Amino acid sequence: MAMDQVPEARDRKDALFATLGSRFGSRLSTSAALREQHAHTLTWIRNEPPDAVLFAETTAEVVEVVKLCAEARVPLIPFGTGTSLEGHVNAPFGGLSLDLSRMNRIVAVHPEDLDCMVEPGVTRKALNEHLRDMGLFFPVDPGADASLGGMAATRASGTNAVRYGTMRDTVLGLTAVLADGSVVKTGGRARKSASGYDLTRLLIGSEGTLGVITELTLKLSGIPETIVAAICPFATIEGACNATIAALQLGLPLARIELLDEVQMRACNAYSHLTLAETPTLFLEFHGTQAATAEQVEAFAAIAAAEGGGPLVSAGRQEERNRLWQARHDAYWAARGLRPGAGIITTDVCVPISALAACVTQTRQDIDRTGLLAPIVGHVGDGNFHVMPLVDLANPEERRKVQGFLDRLVARALAFDGTSTGEHGIGQGKMNYLAAEHGTSVEVMAAIKKALDPLNILNPGKIFAL
Amino acid sequence: MAMDQVPEARDRKDALFATLGSRFGSRLSTSAALREQHAHTLTWIRNEPPDAVLFAETTAEVVEVVKLCAEARVPLIPFGTGTSLEGHVNAPFGGLSLDLSRMNRIVAVHPEDLDCMVEPGVTRKALNEHLRDMGLFFPVDPGADASLGGMAATRASGTNAVRYGTMRDTVLGLTAVLADGSVVKTGGRARKSASGYDLTRLLIGSEGTLGVITELTLKLSGIPETIVAAICPFATIEGACNATIAALQLGLPLARIELLDEVQMRACNAYSHLTLAETPTLFLEFHGTQAATAEQVEAFAAIAAAEGGGPLVSAGRQEERNRLWQARHDAYWAARGLRPGAGIITTDVCVPISALAACVTQTRQDIDRTGLLAPIVGHVGDGNFHVMPLVDLANPEERRKVQGFLDRLVARALAFDGTSTGEHGIGQGKMNYLAAEHGTSVEVMAAIKKALDPLNILNPGKIFAL
Repeated sequence: MAMDQVPEARDRKDALFATLGSRFGSRLSTSAALREQHAHTLTWIRNEPPDAVLFAETTAEVVEVVKLCAEARVPLIPFGTGTSLEGHVNAPFGGLSLDLSRMNRIVAVHPEDLDCMVEPGVTRKALNEHLRDMGLFFPVDPGADASLGGMAATRASGTNAVRYGTMRDTVLGLTAVLADGSVVKTGGRARKSASGYDLTRLLIGSEGTLGVITELTLKLSGIPETIVAAICPFATIEGACNATIAALQLGLPLARIELLDEVQMRACNAYSHLTLAETPTLFLEFHGTQAATAEQVEAFAAIAAAEGGGPLVSAGRQEERNRLWQARHDAYWAARGLRPGAGIITTDVCVPISALAACVTQTRQDIDRTGLLAPIVGHVGDGNFHVMPLVDLANPEERRKVQGFLDRLVARALAFDGTSTGEHGIGQGKMNYLAAEHGTSVEVMAAIKKALDPLNILNPGKIFAL
Repeated sequence: MAMDQVPEARDRKDALFATLGSRFGSRLSTSAALREQHAHTLTWIRNEPPDAVLFAETTAEVVEVVKLCAEARVPLIPFGTGTSLEGHVNAPFGGLSLDLSRMNRIVAVHPEDLDCMVEPGVTRKALNEHLRDMGLFFPVDPGADASLGGMAATRASGTNAVRYGTMRDTVLGLTAVLADGSVVKTGGRARKSASGYDLTRLLIGSEGTLGVITELTLKLSGIPETIVAAICPFATIEGACNATIAALQLGLPLARIELLDEVQMRACNAYSHLTLAETPTLFLEFHGTQAATAEQVEAFAAIAAAEGGGPLVSAGRQEERNRLWQARHDAYWAARGLRPGAGIITTDVCVPISALAACVTQTRQDIDRTGLLAPIVGHVGDGNFHVMPLVDLANPEERRKVQGFLDRLVARALAFDGTSTGEHGIGQGKMNYLAAEHGTSVEVMAAIKKALDPLNILNPGKIFAL
C-alpha cells in the first residue's frame, strides 16, 4: 500500500490542504490541468502530478509551507518553470508543488560589483532584459527561459559555460529554506571566501532535495564591446574536436563553441531552408574588443585549417550573427522536424575533451546500429554533448531500443572518465546510473540528505532512492 | 579533566601509538622538535603540538591510520607543508599529525584536457616545475610553496585568482578518506557535471574536518604567449580601487592586480632599495597574445589616468618584469623589516569591490588610531586584502590592542557585506567570527560534520567548536 493510501497519511494530507487552502485561498489549487502542468512534461518520463499546487510569494511563506508539510509528512516539490529534463518536478509520492514563479523580483543590482540579487522565479531572459541598459548580462544560457532558482537547483549551464562558467561558478550566495523551516544564507557578496563549508555549492545541483532556494546572489559580466559569430565546417568530428582542443590549449577565450553533427546539420538545412555543408560544423562566438575578437577569429581560422576545417565564415553585426547562428538556434525544432509527430528525448553526457571525438563517434555508430534517428549537438568546449533520439513513445519496441541506447551512452561516458550528465541533472531519469558514477560517494550524499532532511520531505524520489 | 588525561583515553592513545609504531616503524615519531614543527608556527596562535607525527605514503595507509585513530578515539590532523595561517594544523586535543608530504607523486598529466592528477603532498612549485616544458601551468598562487592538498583543504587562492579562480574553481575532483575510513572519489575529469551533490566543493575549504585528501584532479592553463607586468601609482586608495572596478566592468582580463598601500610602499622602498612613489600603487600582470596584452596595457593606462593614477610603467621581458614586481614579491619581508624583531600577524578579509576603498581606508584609520604599525596589501580584483600588524607578542598591551583591531577588522568587513576571510580560512583564529558571518548556516555545517564524522576525529577544534 503506497504511503499516500494509508488512511492516516491521507487524513494528514487532507488536513494540510485544508489548512493551506484557508491560509492561501486561491493560491492553492488542485485543478487537474494545473497539477499536470506542474509535473514532468518534457521528454519521455511519465507525468506524475502533485496533489496540489501552491504559489508562494515570500520567503516567510515558504517557511510556513515547509513547516506545515513537514508536520504533515507530505512531500514538497519546488517548481520554477518546469523546463528541467529528467523528471525533477514530478511527484512520485504525491504532495505539494511549491510554485516560486511569482517570487520574481530583481531585488538589487550592483553594477560596480558586477553582481545582483534576485528571487528564484526571475527567469534568465527577464534578468537580462533588466540588465541590458546597464551594459551587464548574466551569462548562463541553458536554452530554455528557465527560472534562476531552478537553474541553480539543477546546476544548469549551456552554450557559453566554456567562457563564463556554469551556475556553480556564477552563484555567489543563496537564501534557502531547509526541511525544518530554518532559513539559511550561504555565501555572500564577496567574490571569494575561505570561511566555513561551501553550502552554496552544496545547494547548487541538489535539485530541491536539500532546500528551497528563495533568493540568489549572482555574478554578472559586462556586455562585451564586440561580439563576433562564426561557423566552420569540418570533414570529421575528430577535426572539429582537435581544433577545439588546440584553441583551448592556446588560451583562446572562446565565448561559445558548439558542435552540430552531420545528422543535425541535415535537419537544420531542411528546417531552416539553409544550404550549409552537411558535415560536422562548429558554431563559435568571440567576445572582446574589436582588435581582440579579430585576432581570435584569425587564430581560430588557422587552427581549423590545420585540422582540415573551413572555410570559416564570421560576422559582427547582430543581424548577420543571428543569421549565421540560425541553424544552432533552431537545432531543437529542426531535430523534431526530422520525424514529425515523434517524441523527442533530450539527454546529455560530458567527457574529458580528449575523449569527445571518440565518444561522439562511437555514439553515432551506436545510434545507427540500433536503428535510431538521433542528432547530436555538443557544447564542445566543455566536452558536453546532447543526443536527441526521435522516438514513437507508444511503440514498446522503440522504447526498449532507446532505453538500451541511453544505458550504453552513459556507460560509454563513464568509461571515458566522464559523467552521466553535464548539465541536465539526475532527477528521476538518471538515478539508476548514480552508483556506477559515484560509488561510495552516494552514501555520503545520502548521509547529508538524511542529516538535513530526516523526514525526506523535500523532493523525495529524486537523485537517489532513500 | 581534558579528554587526553582521562586514564582510559591515555591508555587508548598509548595502545594506538604502539600499534602504529610497530606497523610504520620510524615513520611514526614523537620527537618534540618534529611535533612542534607539525603544529602552528606562523603568526601569533599558540603552537599546540600533536602527540605524534606519522608520514603516510599511500591512500591505503591513510585508510588504515584513520580507522585506527577512530577506534582509539584519537584526533587525526592532516598536514601538508604547515604554511596555513590560522592554526589549522594545531592539535588542541593532542592526537596524531598525519604528514602527507611524502605522497608527492604527479600521477598523470593530460595536456589535451588541461588537467592533471596529483597526490596531496605535491607542492604548487613542484607541479609547475614539472609542467613547464609542456607549456602548461597551475595558476593558483598563494605565495607560500604550499602543498596542493593543503591548498584544497583551505580553499586557497592568491594573486591571480581574479583571472584563473581559486582552489574552488581549479579542482575538478578529489579522492578523500573519510572519518570511517571509507574512500570516496568526488567529481571527475569532465569539465562540468550536474550529477549529484557537489562533494568536491564540500571538501574544498573543509580544513581537514571532513576527510583526508589523498589525490586531486586539477584544471591547468596554457602558459600565455605573452606576459606583461606593470605598476601604476595612485594619489589615493579610492583612485586605485575605482580604476580596478572600471577595468573589471570593461571585461579587461587582468591576470593579477595587487594593491600596496603607502605604508607597504614605504616598507618596500626601504627593504628593496627602491625609489617608488610612496602612495597606493597597483601591481598588474596581463596575459595573452602580444597584441592583446598591448591593448590591455593601453586600456588600463587610460582607465588609471582617468582616476588620477599613473604613470603606468610596463615591461614584457622576464627580468624586467621581475624587477618591476620586486616590491610586491618582497612585500612580506619588507613589512617585517619595518620593525625588526617584532612578530607579524598576517590576516585577511574580503569585501565586495565597491566597498574596498572605504574598507581599506577605514582600516588604515583604525590602524593609525590604535597605534599599530601594519601595512596593507590587497588582491584588489577580488576585494580581498591583507593587513600585517607588526607586534611585540610578549607585550600583553600590544596583544590586547591588536586583538581589538582584528575583531573590528572582521566586523567592518561583515558590515560591508564581506567575509571574515577571503583565502586564509577559519582554523582556530577565526572560529569566534563564524556565527556572526553565517548565522544559522553554522548549524547546517555542524550537522554535516556530525553526519560524516560523528566521533569528531578529523581535525577537531577547527572551524567550529563541537
